[in-house]
Amino acid sequence: MKRSSVAGLQCSIAQTLEIVGDWWTLLIIRNISFGQRRFEAIQADLGIARNILSDRLSMLVEHEVLEKTKYQDSPERFEYRATAKGKDLIGVLFALMAWGDKWAAPDGKPMVVTHVDCGHETEPHVVCSECGEELQWGHTRVKRARRGQLHHTTD
Amino acid sequence: MKRSSVAGLQCSIAQTLEIVGDWWTLLIIRNISFGQRRFEAIQADLGIARNILSDRLSMLVEHEVLEKTKYQDSPERFEYRATAKGKDLIGVLFALMAWGDKWAAPDGKPMVVTHVDCGHETEPHVVCSECGEELQWGHTRVKRARRGQLHHTTD
Repeated sequence: MKRSSVAGLQCSIAQTLEIVGDWWTLLIIRNISFGQRRFEAIQADLGIARNILSDRLSMLVEHEVLEKTKYQDSPERFEYRATAKGKDLIGVLFALMAWGDKWAAPDGKPMVVTHVDCGHETEPHVVCSECGEELQWGHTRVKRARRGQLHHTTD
Repeated sequence: MKRSSVAGLQCSIAQTLEIVGDWWTLLIIRNISFGQRRFEAIQADLGIARNILSDRLSMLVEHEVLEKTKYQDSPERFEYRATAKGKDLIGVLFALMAWGDKWAAPDGKPMVVTHVDCGHETEPHVVCSECGEELQWGHTRVKRARRGQLHHTTD
């Protein structure tokens, strides 16, 4: 990872990957979304090295994606909860899941998601805020907001 | 990255990250979505080391996310195009962009996206396929499809 180049990329994808763009980070957030908030539980479930987990959790707290709160005094014990910023990553997790269900699950999708609000089994779709249709490759144009430089996305 | 643990995770998020879960991979696909299909152009734009770019492109071709096609005979020159599998990653890119626009763009979002189909400036939303509402943290239940083990997502 060559972090130094991000600043020049001026793109929210790059900025997001600067924070969550490592294999473990989004899996840690996934586990926390399942209510697994403690170091030992996440470590055991993911089989991640303790120093790496510790490093990633600290980074996520520093970026205000997670907050570390004490749940026991003696001895002191902490758990990690998603902030509003962290909770908003659920869309990224679902977009990753939808792609994996379609393209990387030869034996069928491993998880079934129910949307509590409507009660139905759901598939996450990434759609246009204006017309509600799925955003597809080659059907968008991207323009730099400040310098007005235009990128046409192509087929 | 501890690749060996993925198989046990049985989750499409993990399987997707196995393929695209490194900082560079999604940025390469982003550049290709902008029509930047040649090694030299991607290398110059991202400032990525040549051996890393070469490695990531080969991996994406191997996973059938990209295809490598010859556009010139003498000397032989190749370009990279997204397959249907690769094009489907646009939803992941837009989910990452939406999060970054909201949480990692203190000076305002750097890119403006227009949805060609409806003609409007758009913000990507990750929604339920059944009711069309945004999928939010704590509003879904996830169940293992095969073993029936239930994970409640929590607030």
